[in-house]
Amino acid sequence: MIVMNIELNTLWVLLATAMVVFMEGGFSLLEAGFVRAKNAVNVTMKVFVDLTFGTLAFYVIGFHLMFGEDVAGLIGKVFGAMPDQGPGGLPLAAYLLFQIAFAIAVASIISGAVAERMKFSAYMLVTVIVCGVLYPISGHWIWSEHGWLARLGMKDFAGSTAIHAMGGFAALALAQLLGPRQNRFNGENRSNREFAPSNLPLASAGAFILWFGWFGFNAGSTLSAGDARLSTIALNTFLAAAAGGASTILAYLIRKKPVDPGMVINGSLAGLVAITAGCAFVTETAAVIIGLIAGILVIFATDWVERLKIDDPVGAVAVHGFNGVLGTVAVGLFDIQAGWITTGQTRLLLVQLLGAVAVAAWGYLSAYAAGKLLQVSVGIRVSPEEEQRGLDLSIHGMAAYHAEESHAGVEERTEPAVQKQPQPVHANVLVSVQEGTSL
Amino acid sequence: MIVMNIELNTLWVLLATAMVVFMEGGFSLLEAGFVRAKNAVNVTMKVFVDLTFGTLAFYVIGFHLMFGEDVAGLIGKVFGAMPDQGPGGLPLAAYLLFQIAFAIAVASIISGAVAERMKFSAYMLVTVIVCGVLYPISGHWIWSEHGWLARLGMKDFAGSTAIHAMGGFAALALAQLLGPRQNRFNGENRSNREFAPSNLPLASAGAFILWFGWFGFNAGSTLSAGDARLSTIALNTFLAAAAGGASTILAYLIRKKPVDPGMVINGSLAGLVAITAGCAFVTETAAVIIGLIAGILVIFATDWVERLKIDDPVGAVAVHGFNGVLGTVAVGLFDIQAGWITTGQTRLLLVQLLGAVAVAAWGYLSAYAAGKLLQVSVGIRVSPEEEQRGLDLSIHGMAAYHAEESHAGVEERTEPAVQKQPQPVHANVLVSVQEGTSL
Amino acid sequence: MIVMNIELNTLWVLLATAMVVFMEGGFSLLEAGFVRAKNAVNVTMKVFVDLTFGTLAFYVIGFHLMFGEDVAGLIGKVFGAMPDQGPGGLPLAAYLLFQIAFAIAVASIISGAVAERMKFSAYMLVTVIVCGVLYPISGHWIWSEHGWLARLGMKDFAGSTAIHAMGGFAALALAQLLGPRQNRFNGENRSNREFAPSNLPLASAGAFILWFGWFGFNAGSTLSAGDARLSTIALNTFLAAAAGGASTILAYLIRKKPVDPGMVINGSLAGLVAITAGCAFVTETAAVIIGLIAGILVIFATDWVERLKIDDPVGAVAVHGFNGVLGTVAVGLFDIQAGWITTGQTRLLLVQLLGAVAVAAWGYLSAYAAGKLLQVSVGIRVSPEEEQRGLDLSIHGMAAYHAEESHAGVEERTEPAVQKQPQPVHANVLVSVQEGTSL
Repeated sequence: MIVMNIELNTLWVLLATAMVVFMEGGFSLLEAGFVRAKNAVNVTMKVFVDLTFGTLAFYVIGFHLMFGEDVAGLIGKVFGAMPDQGPGGLPLAAYLLFQIAFAIAVASIISGAVAERMKFSAYMLVTVIVCGVLYPISGHWIWSEHGWLARLGMKDFAGSTAIHAMGGFAALALAQLLGPRQNRFNGENRSNREFAPSNLPLASAGAFILWFGWFGFNAGSTLSAGDARLSTIALNTFLAAAAGGASTILAYLIRKKPVDPGMVINGSLAGLVAITAGCAFVTETAAVIIGLIAGILVIFATDWVERLKIDDPVGAVAVHGFNGVLGTVAVGLFDIQAGWITTGQTRLLLVQLLGAVAVAAWGYLSAYAAGKLLQVSVGIRVSPEEEQRGLDLSIHGMAAYHAEESHAGVEERTEPAVQKQPQPVHANVLVSVQEGTSL
Repeated sequence: MIVMNIELNTLWVLLATAMVVFMEGGFSLLEAGFVRAKNAVNVTMKVFVDLTFGTLAFYVIGFHLMFGEDVAGLIGKVFGAMPDQGPGGLPLAAYLLFQIAFAIAVASIISGAVAERMKFSAYMLVTVIVCGVLYPISGHWIWSEHGWLARLGMKDFAGSTAIHAMGGFAALALAQLLGPRQNRFNGENRSNREFAPSNLPLASAGAFILWFGWFGFNAGSTLSAGDARLSTIALNTFLAAAAGGASTILAYLIRKKPVDPGMVINGSLAGLVAITAGCAFVTETAAVIIGLIAGILVIFATDWVERLKIDDPVGAVAVHGFNGVLGTVAVGLFDIQAGWITTGQTRLLLVQLLGAVAVAAWGYLSAYAAGKLLQVSVGIRVSPEEEQRGLDLSIHGMAAYHAEESHAGVEERTEPAVQKQPQPVHANVLVSVQEGTSL
Repeated sequence: MIVMNIELNTLWVLLATAMVVFMEGGFSLLEAGFVRAKNAVNVTMKVFVDLTFGTLAFYVIGFHLMFGEDVAGLIGKVFGAMPDQGPGGLPLAAYLLFQIAFAIAVASIISGAVAERMKFSAYMLVTVIVCGVLYPISGHWIWSEHGWLARLGMKDFAGSTAIHAMGGFAALALAQLLGPRQNRFNGENRSNREFAPSNLPLASAGAFILWFGWFGFNAGSTLSAGDARLSTIALNTFLAAAAGGASTILAYLIRKKPVDPGMVINGSLAGLVAITAGCAFVTETAAVIIGLIAGILVIFATDWVERLKIDDPVGAVAVHGFNGVLGTVAVGLFDIQAGWITTGQTRLLLVQLLGAVAVAAWGYLSAYAAGKLLQVSVGIRVSPEEEQRGLDLSIHGMAAYHAEESHAGVEERTEPAVQKQPQPVHANVLVSVQEGTSL
């Protein structure tokens, strides 16, 4: 008895799905580590909202809007006929589950940008709207064979545009609507210790999970275990991530600035986001170049968002939004068969530009509209008191950490010392950093 | 040259095994995050005991008791002949390893319920007894083709009863025997801040690992890569987890209570536990319904256990015990071929009820007996002083966290506080250890 | 249409690669948890250096030195012809990626031993040199079919020598060159609270990830999904890890000493390291014996390194160096076909000894030379002030943890309040929640 491809493909897609689902854990730890400790629980619970309500919303509505009977290349019919199986005869259940994992990633991209100040109920509604309606629509344009961008020949292999640009620009809209966290833009931020990440090892754990899951995200998008491009996709994905982190680190060393750990993490993720569209279409060298650019772009994009006084606590807009667009355009430049640089052809480049702009605009505008609607109805921002107290205590009645217990038996000598005057610390740091002697 | 199913099945089972083994990490982080920081190391070390002594115990004895030559459908012969291969011609080594991963999960379910107050040596003995004897016996009833429950036609696909109900009710017995943690039931608990989770982001990391590993746990239980039910199993598992977390969140919102993060985590896990028996036998809709019920049941079960003044620091009894039973009974209700609701037949439902009750009773009574035996011999509870100091310092001579170091650079002010007189602490530890009273 | 082995092998190698890459996260969390909090970010960033610069260095140079046209069995030609595919017709991209994941593991072994005192730029150069040149050379000896050790018939299945002994002894050389951390060897260390691990739950999370990834590391080294040894390899790997942790725990219990959590973690890892060479060549019983020895050896090796006043903050030398050698020699003893104990033959044992000694010496001497070169040029150690302040603040301008934020909003009443009268906190919460304004 022999294995038919279909069985192996099913197994492969399910394994890839498990890895992509695990990325939710990556998003959660990354965000919980980047935000202030007083909001770490809340941002974690938001990822649970993605995993629960986001899943159900895409399952009930989104999947149909995205892959249902096409209407003018714009949208699928919710109550229309559904295909009885996925691409290449893949069982529909496997295909659906893989698509669910992708859909909730869009919501998780948003969760970071709106952290520390958004109402829980409002976030739940946003998740349902994004996973149930907004993402499936633009997703239909690109990944339904009848979508208008698909028909134009847009190439977005694993979703630099469909997932990351969509999520990143929706995040931008909602972060803008919410407004910045209290005191976020008083004085120069970078040295504003109050907004330093609360738990960088936790954030890095999230990044490693994301890096791991990305193998499933990109290579799994073949939906076929026999796809000859599998190795290239995996290698390109890895090289771009490596190049992304490398160029970020170099950017800081060259400027003799302290190597910002949060930005190094985001630099690697930027490389992953940027190679997601082209991993199956470009050479290894192009993958490295794309990664190197992504690692720099994420720094400038982060500064740009900050200069607009838009508060994105985890850098989701810079990582997913800007690098999603970069990755999409990069296919137009480096695609082996039709890239402008590789072949001199311009058509694909124009299509990629159009697609990236169209979906980024859709993400921004549709999320802005939805957010505005919620703002004037249920409201989207917590009260100043709740924000000041922290969403963990305000909404969940519980702090993320109760570390004092770890000093059990030696309490008498701790509290006073730990709390007082943190500023001096930072002063010291700046000094040591100007010197940059150890870089 | 072509791949034979047997080779692919072996690969699939090994990958699934790796994922199930990784769940030990999930249990460890979940429990370390839920308990107080002064006991986080100890609960982590307990999971290492499961991975080490639990593994060896099942390898040497348990596997034979569970799958050895059948004796009256009740037990396997330890020194009887063993099958020379697993189901479907699977290499015995692969099958054995998969079974080891399942066996130690039972011990890890218990480790959470007995956290913060149990002697380390006593826990080691419990792990050896559970993985070596108690679990394999009830496991034989269900998963050995000759087991009496198997012959009755009980359906427990991946172990809602065999693993979770068994572990959950054994946990109940031991938590009851140990008695509550000091001051646990003074005043109304929920507002008893002293018992708040020490590290919720860590606990959530554990939950995400468990969610990931559950793909291997449930889908891997096919032991066959070509099993046509693979996609359904994975999708059902995921939908039930999503529904579980969703109904828990809604339950708090509707009652306008703070959304308890620990309970939301447990709600998702409850959904996973409850779908474990039926993932291969029910429809997607049934999976969602089962998950929704699980997410509510876990709240009531937790309260019920508390009202009995039984102290389960992580909610293991509610999550694994009660939802293990729910999942088993649910098969009797929703099984596509013989469920009461789906087909009107009652036989399967009665068999499922019988099986769940029998194994839950076996888990409770056998663990109670074993615990009682240890209680009157080596003793099972640490001294009040050790408990007060925390098991990390008492048993391991080390605290889980030394966060004050993160304020280094301001040492000039913490120095006196942090550095001074750590000796006393350590001295105490050494003393308690020299006496070895808690080992 | 049927699946050809080559396609399945590719898929298997890519999945294994993802698991091995994930081990970088394991190294990172393990090291961040073991070092003092003031250096947790820096050690994390070092792992990012491995993932980025280490990857690029091996990709550009190392891979050629290791698998390029052989020169006298000693090294491969950088600009010579490369094979156009991997072993068994594996796509070169898949083989290359798998090899990259192994190469950077060597650097990550080193990163722990040099933690808390090494210059960031110097570490970057070390990583490039190790991944680009030093490891590939000894790797060529063992894993290139033309390597002199390979031709002698040395058996190092997944790299007890090639990866672990190489990394472990290179780590020894660099730790020795750097010198101990300030105050590390004043007074008796074990009771020196200042050097206690900063975050043991985090370290254990790293250990669990490593344990998970090791399935890919060892079983993946078959490079073939149809390899009949797959199950044995996986089972042996798991049994050795279990036995390693078990013997470490027993060693402490028997001596009535506190069960050192860091050592228990390292004991399991030691078992994994020690079985890595022989997992495909020895019996299950031998695997258990090897693990039991490893769990004891790691304790003595750690003490031995300390007595030499060499400061290895995470025990990398003991875990990877000593147990790498143990595992290599163990093949000479237990190899089913040619082991001394199993067959009475001595040739293999001598070859294994020669190989282990040669590579350990190469690792130590080449790393020492490289380190010396850097020491006299760019310098390798941070300034005493920077070390005192902690590398996180000195080099990255940021502390790993900002836990005090978790009490934000209740600061006015924090110090006393944290312990006493928790009611007010909760009261506030309930109020805000009754209003339900933020839900």
